[in-house]
Amino acid sequence: MFKQITIIGVGLIGGSLARALKAAGESALFVGCGRSADNLKKGVELGVIDRYETDIATAVKGSDLIVIATPVGSAEQVFSEIKAGMGSDVIITDVGSTKGSVVDTAKAVFGELPSRFIPGHPIAGTENSGVEASFATLYQHRKVIITPDNSSDPDAVDTVRGLWERCGAEVIEMSVEHHDEVLAATSHLPHMLAFTLVDTLARLEDHEDIFRYAAGGFRDFTRIASSNPKMWHDICIHNRDALLKMLNRFSNELTQLSTLIETGHSEAILELFERAKESRDDYSRRHIKSDL
Amino acid sequence: MFKQITIIGVGLIGGSLARALKAAGESALFVGCGRSADNLKKGVELGVIDRYETDIATAVKGSDLIVIATPVGSAEQVFSEIKAGMGSDVIITDVGSTKGSVVDTAKAVFGELPSRFIPGHPIAGTENSGVEASFATLYQHRKVIITPDNSSDPDAVDTVRGLWERCGAEVIEMSVEHHDEVLAATSHLPHMLAFTLVDTLARLEDHEDIFRYAAGGFRDFTRIASSNPKMWHDICIHNRDALLKMLNRFSNELTQLSTLIETGHSEAILELFERAKESRDDYSRRHIKSDL
Repeated sequence: MFKQITIIGVGLIGGSLARALKAAGESALFVGCGRSADNLKKGVELGVIDRYETDIATAVKGSDLIVIATPVGSAEQVFSEIKAGMGSDVIITDVGSTKGSVVDTAKAVFGELPSRFIPGHPIAGTENSGVEASFATLYQHRKVIITPDNSSDPDAVDTVRGLWERCGAEVIEMSVEHHDEVLAATSHLPHMLAFTLVDTLARLEDHEDIFRYAAGGFRDFTRIASSNPKMWHDICIHNRDALLKMLNRFSNELTQLSTLIETGHSEAILELFERAKESRDDYSRRHIKSDL
Repeated sequence: MFKQITIIGVGLIGGSLARALKAAGESALFVGCGRSADNLKKGVELGVIDRYETDIATAVKGSDLIVIATPVGSAEQVFSEIKAGMGSDVIITDVGSTKGSVVDTAKAVFGELPSRFIPGHPIAGTENSGVEASFATLYQHRKVIITPDNSSDPDAVDTVRGLWERCGAEVIEMSVEHHDEVLAATSHLPHMLAFTLVDTLARLEDHEDIFRYAAGGFRDFTRIASSNPKMWHDICIHNRDALLKMLNRFSNELTQLSTLIETGHSEAILELFERAKESRDDYSRRHIKSDL
């Protein structure tokens, strides 16, 4: 239990965390902070936060826990303003989709990685954004990755772990580098493909007709192209190297498939699809209860 | 109403058509045909078809309607065998995902496009296959494209139109060429991306870990990679040109995005994502009731 939890960025992710903690009985005062007073007012109206500030240094005063839930591109500014207002033994965590850049930024702002800053990333979300899209059960049965290092305060690690477990999530520790590689493959790359596919089709002359005849597969396949553009822009910039590596691997394999189709390599095409189906079916069996 | 409807290929698509027609009160004898006697036996057990034959020429004897619901690669063999057994005024339609190759094959086998063969394509499906995956409501509120031409028998067009309308579908006429271009963009290209993405990740050294941390976006994005490999192989071969054109456009745009990320063109990245989100949101508003 905390006295005061300050959530910087009260959108889908930050708002859902506040809702989940309140639903789990957390009695702290929830202070929201962000650039849009309208969004924060909505957050108070909806009972997601108890009060709000638009100045970060003011918002973190008196907090024993600070959660940074803004797009990762704002990390430098957010850390600097937190530093100006935070108490000496506050625990800080974040929910950023990239971890290397966040850790580097924290080191730059604080001179070293603060031992009570425990980087985190809930593997959960929807294509919607804003506090009105938040809901208390977003993290139930979801995974949350945290990336503490040798210098991390064990109490702070336990606290951040407990925070997410109270929201119904499973918490996993891994290295910053491994996190950024895994997420580039499973999340960042697919989002690039979805954005690019929708934009490619939208640029076709007969795009009205094109979208009219799209079926369920297309709907599911492109849903993530409705995700927050600013958040995904920031991810591209801040997980650049791992993402470029995956984009490159994917492009090479797609070129190979195009060549197989062009040259009519029937058997190799069938093998590729069979292999992919087997992997996807296996993934489904192991990791998706709702698919079965 | 028909006396006898022969369905060649009693899988997800053919089986669901039979179920939907029966549910709509169609009293014809439903004869199933296919290569797997086991699947056909299951079809009889499930009440999807009334009896079955494994020989096409035998199966179509006495039919006033033949529905071809096999992967498009089997069209030549199926048409030849139909020709050997069919009555003179039978109406034929198919459900193939490509129309140019099916029409060309019909012309080759029959010498000209039979005036009572009305090519069709229901824009519906799931990633599952086989008669056990079929269900009566698959076509409700879905679109079915038919591609008759000037030589088509108007009665046969009306009959095929009515067939699908009785299943709850909306029937649209378009040219063979336009069908193949539209489907290359909205269906065939996304399937190529999903198969390629899953296979790219499955080839990574730490693929076990990779799939373990995949979230909901990945699940939805890759669901279509569980689709029937043989069917998709056939589509690649039989809609080769339109598909290669779309693959090429997509690859070019993905390369452009990679370059933007590599060179840190922040604003252009944001613009691309904003444009894509706007198109996807617009598509969602216009065409997907369940998204809203």
